[in-house]
Order: sequence, then C-alpha cells, then structure tokens
Amino acid sequence: MSFAKLDDHLRKIEALEHALAILGADEATHMAVGGGEKRAEAMSTLAGIHHARATAPEIADWIAAAEGEALNEEQQAALRELKRAYTNLTCLPAEFVERQMKARMRCEQLWRDLRAKNDWAGFLPALEGVVALVREEAALRAGVLGLDPYDALIEQYDPGNRAADIAPVFDALKTFLKDFVPQALAVQEERLAKAPRRPLAGPYAIDRQRELGLAMMGAIGFDFTHGSLSVSHHPFCGGVPTDVRITTRYKTSDFLSALMGVLHETGHALYEQNLPKQWSHWPLGKARGMAMHESQSLFVEKQIGRNPAFWQWALPQLAQHLGEQWTMAEILPHVHHVERGLIRVDADEVTYPLHVILRFELERELVGGKLAAADLPEAWDAGMRDYLDLSTIDNPADGPMQDVHWPAGLFGYFPSYTLGAMMAAQQWAALKKENPSADDDLAAGRFEAIADWRRKNIWSQASRYSTPELLERATGEKLNAAHFTAHLKARYGA
Amino acid sequence: MSFAKLDDHLRKIEALEHALAILGADEATHMAVGGGEKRAEAMSTLAGIHHARATAPEIADWIAAAEGEALNEEQQAALRELKRAYTNLTCLPAEFVERQMKARMRCEQLWRDLRAKNDWAGFLPALEGVVALVREEAALRAGVLGLDPYDALIEQYDPGNRAADIAPVFDALKTFLKDFVPQALAVQEERLAKAPRRPLAGPYAIDRQRELGLAMMGAIGFDFTHGSLSVSHHPFCGGVPTDVRITTRYKTSDFLSALMGVLHETGHALYEQNLPKQWSHWPLGKARGMAMHESQSLFVEKQIGRNPAFWQWALPQLAQHLGEQWTMAEILPHVHHVERGLIRVDADEVTYPLHVILRFELERELVGGKLAAADLPEAWDAGMRDYLDLSTIDNPADGPMQDVHWPAGLFGYFPSYTLGAMMAAQQWAALKKENPSADDDLAAGRFEAIADWRRKNIWSQASRYSTPELLERATGEKLNAAHFTAHLKARYGA
Repeated sequence: MSFAKLDDHLRKIEALEHALAILGADEATHMAVGGGEKRAEAMSTLAGIHHARATAPEIADWIAAAEGEALNEEQQAALRELKRAYTNLTCLPAEFVERQMKARMRCEQLWRDLRAKNDWAGFLPALEGVVALVREEAALRAGVLGLDPYDALIEQYDPGNRAADIAPVFDALKTFLKDFVPQALAVQEERLAKAPRRPLAGPYAIDRQRELGLAMMGAIGFDFTHGSLSVSHHPFCGGVPTDVRITTRYKTSDFLSALMGVLHETGHALYEQNLPKQWSHWPLGKARGMAMHESQSLFVEKQIGRNPAFWQWALPQLAQHLGEQWTMAEILPHVHHVERGLIRVDADEVTYPLHVILRFELERELVGGKLAAADLPEAWDAGMRDYLDLSTIDNPADGPMQDVHWPAGLFGYFPSYTLGAMMAAQQWAALKKENPSADDDLAAGRFEAIADWRRKNIWSQASRYSTPELLERATGEKLNAAHFTAHLKARYGA
Repeated sequence: MSFAKLDDHLRKIEALEHALAILGADEATHMAVGGGEKRAEAMSTLAGIHHARATAPEIADWIAAAEGEALNEEQQAALRELKRAYTNLTCLPAEFVERQMKARMRCEQLWRDLRAKNDWAGFLPALEGVVALVREEAALRAGVLGLDPYDALIEQYDPGNRAADIAPVFDALKTFLKDFVPQALAVQEERLAKAPRRPLAGPYAIDRQRELGLAMMGAIGFDFTHGSLSVSHHPFCGGVPTDVRITTRYKTSDFLSALMGVLHETGHALYEQNLPKQWSHWPLGKARGMAMHESQSLFVEKQIGRNPAFWQWALPQLAQHLGEQWTMAEILPHVHHVERGLIRVDADEVTYPLHVILRFELERELVGGKLAAADLPEAWDAGMRDYLDLSTIDNPADGPMQDVHWPAGLFGYFPSYTLGAMMAAQQWAALKKENPSADDDLAAGRFEAIADWRRKNIWSQASRYSTPELLERATGEKLNAAHFTAHLKARYGA
C-alpha cells in the first residue's frame, strides 16, 4: 500500500530532521568553539541526505497511487498536505537551487562583514545578485503553484496567506499606528512625569533568574519531560517536539530581558510540545507556519506575559526568586515601555509593526521588479521618516542592511512577525469571549483553561488547514486588525 | 583515482559518525527524559545509513584499485588500515548480524530487569542464546581473518592482541597479586592503626568541585576550545576529536570520586584531541583500540593522578577551590585506598586486575566451548574465592550477572582494562627513563613534557601500528607485567 510506504519513508525523514534539529541546537548551546568546522561538514552531509530523501521521485509516485487508495479523512488530509509540501520542495530545478545557495551564502557572509563597516556600496552588488535570483525563484514557484510571484514566496512560510489580503490589513494598522505611536509616547511621558521609573538595580544572579524562568515556564505549561531551557547568544526555540530546546541569555543588570525572552520561547515550545504526536513524521503533524508560530510565542509574551493581570501573580514570584519586592505601579512602566528606534528586534509591540510593514512594502516591490536594490536606502529612509519620524539615510547599517533576511534570500518571511502579533490578539479576544474570566485566571496563576483553548483550537490542528483557515476556525473570523489595535489602545492609550 | 574516491566517501562517513557521537553524548547529558524514544529512532536510522555506507561493496573495489596506485607511505598505511577495518566490518552475513542484534538487545533488556532481582535462572536461557551466537560469530570471523576464534573477537577491540600472548602475562600478574593483595591490605591496616583516616567531611558544593575539575583538566592539557565537561549518570568520554565531551557525576559528601573520574576521562580526551587531524576520517587517524585508550585514561588517573608527587601540586588547588586544607599524610590514604570487593567498577588498581583476569579466563573458555553458561556461577565463585577470598555463590547479581558486557554480546573486551593498566605503567616507566624528572614536573604542576612524550609516542601514531607494535615502539619492549607490579609494589608495598 502506497500510503504505508509513504508513512515508512516519512519516519526515516523525521529521523534525519531529528538529528539536524538536535545538532543545530547543540551547536548554539553546548558545542566547543573549535568544533564548528566539523559540525558544519556533518550537518551539510546530513542535510544532503535529508534533501535527497525528501525530494525522492518515488514520493510523487506513491502520492499518486495513495490518492486512489481507501483512506480515512485524516489520512486524506495528511496526503494533501504532503503533496503541497512536496510540490513546494521540488518545484525548483537543482541547478537553480545550487546557484542560489552559493549567492545567498556569499551575500550573507559579506553582509556580516560590511554591515559592521556601514558599507552599503560594497554590499549592493551581492544584494542585487540575490534579488535577481529571488525574482527568478518567485517566477518559477509562481508557475508551478499558479500564484502571484510574491505570494509563491509567502506560501513557503505561511500557506494560504496572500499579499492582496495582507496589504489592506497592514494599511489599516499603519494608519492607526502613525497616529497612535505619538499618543502612546505622550501618555507614557505624562505618567513618568508623575512617577519616575524605578530603575532595575541588580545585580540579579543568573542562577536566580534561571530559577524564576523555570518556575514561570512550568506554571504556563512547559513540559520539562519533553524539553529544557539553556543559554545561547541569540535566544531560540529548537530541538524536536519530544525534546524542545529553548534558550535565553542573561544580563545581571536586568532580569526582564531574559524573562520576557523565556516567555516568548515558551510560547513557541508549547506549540511544538502539543502537536499531535501520531502525525509527527507527516507534514500534517507539524506546526502550521511562521505567522501561526509567532502568534503562539507572542500570545505568551504579549497577551499573557505583558498583561497587568499576569503581573499580579508574577510579582510574588519575582520576590521569591530574586528577593526583590516590586509593585504593579513600578513594574508596568518597564513591561510596557514604548520607544521609537531604528532596530526592529529591539522594538516594542507598539512600534514593531511599522518596522515590518515597511519591509513588507519594500520587499513586495523588490520581488515585483518595481523597486531596484540600489534604491533601497532612499526608500527605507522615506518610510522610516513617514512611519517613525527617524532617518537612516546616513546609516544603511541600521537601515536596509539591518536584518539577515534579505542577504540570506528570505523574502516573504517578514510579514509573519506582525501577522503573528495580530493573530495573537485575535486569539486572545476569541478566548476571552468563551472564557470571560481569563484575566482572573492569569492573576491567580491558573493557566490550564487558557492552554486548553489553545490546544483545542490551534495546537491539535497542526497543519490540517491553511493559515487563514486555521485562524478563522479558531477565532470565528478572518484576520481583523481591530483586535490588535484595541489591544494596543487598552494597554498603551490614554 | 580510487584513493581520492575513498577519501571522499570516508568524509561522508565521518559526518555520520559525528552526528551519532554528538547525539549519543547529548542523550546522556542534555536530553529531556521523554525524548528517548524518538532519539532511539533517529540514531537507529542514522546507524543504518552509516552501516550501509561503511560496508558499501564499492569500497572493496576502490581499495583493490587504490592498491595499484602510486601512493606515498602514509597513504599506503591508511589503505592497509582501512582494508583491515572494512574486512572486520563486513565479514559477518547481514542475516547473522540481525539475528545477533535481536538476541543481544533482548538479553541486555532482560539483564537490566533480572540483575536487580538476582534471578540467574530466569536470565540463563537468554545468556545461553547470546553465548551460542558469539561462538558462531567467533567462528565466522576466525574463518575470514585466519585467527583463533577468541582472538578474532579481540581483534575488533585491540588489533594484533592475541590470547596466547596475553595469558602468560596475566598469569604472572595473577600469581603476583594473589600474594600482594594481602600484603597491601596489611600495610594499609598497619598505617591506619597508627594514624586513622581523616574523613571526607563535606558538603562539597558541586560548582566548586566542577571548578576544581576544570582547573585540573586545563593544567593537564585538556583543550577547552575542543571539548567540555558536563554531568551524566555514568561518566564517559564521547563526542568527536574536535569537540570531546567528557562527563562526571558529583557527590557533595566526597570530592575525590568526581575528581578522579574527571582525571580518568581527561586521559581519554587527550588521546582524542591529539590524534592527527588530517586523517580524522580514515581508520588510520583514529585511536588504536580499547586497551591503548584505557592506557591513556589510566595513565592520567593512576600514573599521574594517584602519584604522591602530583598531590604536592594538587593540595593547594584543593585548598583554593574547596576551601579545605589537606596534608599529604591525610589525602594519600584516600587516594591509595585498597579494598577487596565483589564489584569490578568499584575496585582499586591493586584488586581490579583480578576481576578482569577472572573474566578473561571464563570468557575464553565460554567462547572456546570448554565452559557452559550454566556453569558460570560455580566457576565465578571458585575464581573469586581463589583470587580475592570472596564468595558469590548465593549472589549471581554481583557475580556473573554483574556486567553488561556479556549480555550485550561483548566478548574479548574485558582484557583491555587490565592491559591498559599495564601499558600505562610501562609507558610511565619508559617516559621516566627519558625524562627522570617527571615526578618533579608533577609536583610543580608542569605537564607539558609528559604530554609531549605521549603525543610523540602514542597520540600522533593513531592507528598506524597494531596494539602490541605501538606499545613496543613507544616503550622499547613488548608488554611486560614487571612495570605494573613494580608500580604497585612502590605505591602499596611495605
């Protein structure tokens, strides 16, 4: 039976993915510094074996044969999603993939060097090469998938999302934020004028910060029999669903940065740990995509972790683990700090979407051929001035050279961040409709009912539906920026 | 060129070995407890891919073709050693390997359960099955290699070692120890009667013990850019030469047990870290075998780490890291404690060889068909009474059910432990001949000259020679028990 053959084949592929995921997490957490070269060789060999097996031509034959077999509804869904994933994985010619990989790697290496030197002119030719190739990629994918070119790129990260649906939602959000950011800053200024911010004093011992993080992870539902917390330079959630590796990094002068990082990665981890285990080796059983994944991390970090109700429960935890008493009035100005800045990854939840919308608008035009890479510094600067009243014209390192995504050839990924933030707000609103006492639950440290809602509506559904379908089934409506703007107004407004 | 094809193929195999080694070390140190099942699937899939590539029939063709190519002396050595390894790896029919693997796994699982219950009768049928298969294996290997059956098993662990050479050396050692153990115990008793042992008080904080271990590792030559120390239930040295993972386990009541474990594993690690890097993917570039590896760990643990001169340097280290002052007269009774016991892994360096010699004698007869598994309890008890004046007749759990080796089908491995101890003593004697101030070096914490001797004579030679050839080249003579007995007499005699 071909379905059984696929099942067997996918188990082998899962084993290779397991090895790659653990080796990757290990590299960032426990590897000796001199082990990198051999590790890269090992992972590249494994990735090659994995790619060969995941794109094996017999998979197409087995899928075709299995479509004629008597399958139950779940098996049919598994087959559909496998076909989609296989098509996306095999629609580029091997010659093109190799050419593109080389250009991306060279551009990314160059970027690491030249960003530090603020050398846009030196960087531009490599970026132009990557942009030319991504246009070619988008056209190739579009031809196979029957989508617009930019949508064909998005499809790899968030199946079913379309720029034509995203753009009006982003436009509405942008219009709102251009007014709202100055308001939120004025509100903040007024509050701080009345009561200055209590500084984070420290030093906060790392082992105590770690214990605090572990206590919160456990309370929120992280399963320590299937995961762990360690340290890395850049926080991440990696590993495999049966052994989820999350990391943070500690500063002894500030307990909040590590803690909010732990909450964010815990959100990713809960999704992975609660996926349906029996389908773990099929695309059907994997997390839906980048936007949905980000909605899960932001749900825990922003909807739960920066909710004032949460801090009623959290303050005694702080006192217990750090030995320091904070009041609500003292902690919230830190948790809800808003600031205009040039750097996306440092941005707060109010200003962050403007960074993303700028990138979405620019990369859509780049892919569509309406903008040349050479014109990015001016376009970027114009956007930043319009959206955040900041200029980057003399500072491309913190402008269009800021992120690794474009040098690495990742176009279509940026929208996921803000889509995730909006989806998290929409999920919280839907959950509150069903469970009006959710804030009381947070204040009392009761996280079970909230997790149950997410397990039923998101986690257990894995990749059964497209991103917009999954959101609509979970929340009862299509993506709606109003939930996110209402959330921001309630938290940061007058 | 076939040599180049082999080189390329071996690099791919090394990548798979890298993945398996890191996944294995990770499983024992950082894996979440619930991650075991998927990890086993991943490693079993990888091991299957590795085995298929390492035994690929084209390797035989490439070796044959390369033998006709113009190769330098080192390449010829590499080809010879590859041929030897390939022959050992491929000389069993796949059907047999599968049958044996199943019997071993069942027997090992049964052993874990029934040893705890002291149930020899329940365990015997499974062990009989494994013994029958190991006899079959030995005959198959012997036929291909032209060796005696038991030697054909040893050949996998210590190439070139032969039971006919080992037996007389073990006999001489046994004769010596049967007299010497009572003497050493009497000497110890007399000393303790004069000055009772100062107890290890504790508690010794784990992070301080860890710092002490790291300081000693670093002083002895462990390269922290290519390795690390962590914690596991059973101490081991794993990972890969560019990233050697050693572990220990801590008791807060006793700093010596973790520390001596760290020194032992550091000995293994130095060997791995100092192998010739350019040959790391060829069998030529790997450590010679189990006995030579054990000689390197025991060199650091026993010849260096239990040497009184070493403790002149080490006592101030103890004081610094643990905050506790010890005198030589106080610490040496702990470092040189001798005790008759039933358990091999708990034995000291005086009594340990008798545990091994007993196993060597019994397994040689088991493989040779002169002893039946059913007769093991009586034979074991007779040996223990003769060698150590202890009985195990009512206690098979601590007799022939004591070790995992036989249930796991590992016959021919046990001699390596005591061969390693003897080789370490012989190496130390040879080193002292060249460098008479070696003890002064230890007392002053100077480990470079000692490491240089080992690098030149052992580590850099990797698998260029057979085990006995390597020993003879390094020390100028064949295996000679006199160095080990002289070492014991000097340290434990009157």
